[in-house]
Amino acid sequence: MDRIRRTERLAVMSKILMDSPNRIFTLGTFCEKFGSAKSSLSEDIDILRTIFAQYGLGVLETVTGAAGGVRYRPTISDEAAVAAVADVVKMLSTPGRVLPGGFIYMADILAMPDVVEKMGNIIATQFYKQEPDFVLTMETKGIPIALMTAKALGVPTVIVRRDNKVYEGPAVNINYISGSGNRIETMSLSRRAVKEGQRTLIVDDFMRAGGTARGMVDMMKEFSVSVIGICVMMATAEPVKKRVEGVRSLLMLENIDDSTGVANIRPSNWMQSLRSQK
Amino acid sequence: MDRIRRTERLAVMSKILMDSPNRIFTLGTFCEKFGSAKSSLSEDIDILRTIFAQYGLGVLETVTGAAGGVRYRPTISDEAAVAAVADVVKMLSTPGRVLPGGFIYMADILAMPDVVEKMGNIIATQFYKQEPDFVLTMETKGIPIALMTAKALGVPTVIVRRDNKVYEGPAVNINYISGSGNRIETMSLSRRAVKEGQRTLIVDDFMRAGGTARGMVDMMKEFSVSVIGICVMMATAEPVKKRVEGVRSLLMLENIDDSTGVANIRPSNWMQSLRSQK
Repeated sequence: MDRIRRTERLAVMSKILMDSPNRIFTLGTFCEKFGSAKSSLSEDIDILRTIFAQYGLGVLETVTGAAGGVRYRPTISDEAAVAAVADVVKMLSTPGRVLPGGFIYMADILAMPDVVEKMGNIIATQFYKQEPDFVLTMETKGIPIALMTAKALGVPTVIVRRDNKVYEGPAVNINYISGSGNRIETMSLSRRAVKEGQRTLIVDDFMRAGGTARGMVDMMKEFSVSVIGICVMMATAEPVKKRVEGVRSLLMLENIDDSTGVANIRPSNWMQSLRSQK
Repeated sequence: MDRIRRTERLAVMSKILMDSPNRIFTLGTFCEKFGSAKSSLSEDIDILRTIFAQYGLGVLETVTGAAGGVRYRPTISDEAAVAAVADVVKMLSTPGRVLPGGFIYMADILAMPDVVEKMGNIIATQFYKQEPDFVLTMETKGIPIALMTAKALGVPTVIVRRDNKVYEGPAVNINYISGSGNRIETMSLSRRAVKEGQRTLIVDDFMRAGGTARGMVDMMKEFSVSVIGICVMMATAEPVKKRVEGVRSLLMLENIDDSTGVANIRPSNWMQSLRSQK
């Protein structure tokens, strides 16, 4: 009987923990739910931790202290991250994706829930330690990856808009230099979207010169929010010097051969360094 | 020993199934992974099915036939759906959300991963039977809910843009009547985003007159795609007659008291009918 109960508990606990990544659950929560003793639940958690580790399903961490308990993080091992990024490289390198002007059609891949969830988990894995309070992105294409990163980090997403919208209330507008063409554009963020003193991770889909990211960094200054990191799915090799410092990207766009219509994309140096550390 | 293996298998199978909702896994996949006999895995699945049902964690379905196997759907019971919608009603009814012009500030709630995931699961639960091939939405605020609905349905999201973007390739543009103010606006969708003969579920955050949804329906006609349903998070009570038929919404905005700044929001009749059927 105890065995059956344990099987049940493990399945239900997995589901609850995985549904709310990075949230700390006290043992008491589970005691109440299952009517089991703390000692049994401690054993359950040890078993789950071992299984998760063995099968690469993420980590289950015990957090000590007054607000202690157990939390699940959908971390991705360096090897699995490199493999997932290689898959995306392959998808983006198929012929016909290069558009006039040196753009790459990525909209389909950026809206596939399983792909963006994996990218989000990879990014979150690298930024758990910095404990961001929210993930910031600029509409539109970066939203799915930002949302999934935020989900893994257990925090909200905040979306910067291109224009001030009537349904966002009082907003801060700033001008920024758009990467493509050095045009001056405007971005807007609702005054109530974030709080002074918070910490944010900026996530976007693509970076060429970094003008949009620069704009988001400047925007955060207006709100007295610290930027703990900037991560994009794909950055271009040129220009080497971006308008913001410390950018990380999962993929690197080396160049595009306009005549053949083939993009030369590879995992970023950062991703490659993860592999080489092993 | 067999008991321990079963515990492991159940935890790992739960995780794999939950990570890819609505995808059919053959028993063979798991046999290979665990080196177990089909009969053991059939028993595992029966156990998991019972646990999931008992704790309201969604459904595990066995699909028969040549392409048969087992699939997980994060369905939400009618009671749980009504409760989740009531939570959102409460969040949106807090003072200070009403903006000049009768708009409601919802951007924060629409970017909370846990909230939009639950809304997405509720919507998906109601549309599994119609088997959409993708979820269609219009940028920007509806994207998170659409993405989570698509995740639950195991299909991609397709995002209609306000303007034709250089990185979307050849696109179809259509004009539509914007709900707020009867202005003519343009929406754009990449030619390669969808395929003729597909079926789509339209998901968006908000509907007043239904002009945007009408535009998406018209856009799908241009692509010879059938619309199997339209579902928004919140619709207004007025106008009663929308520009599209058969709209479902989770919430209903009855009216806004401009003087007190309080919005009168309630679960939609559709959600209430779910409850009353019980």
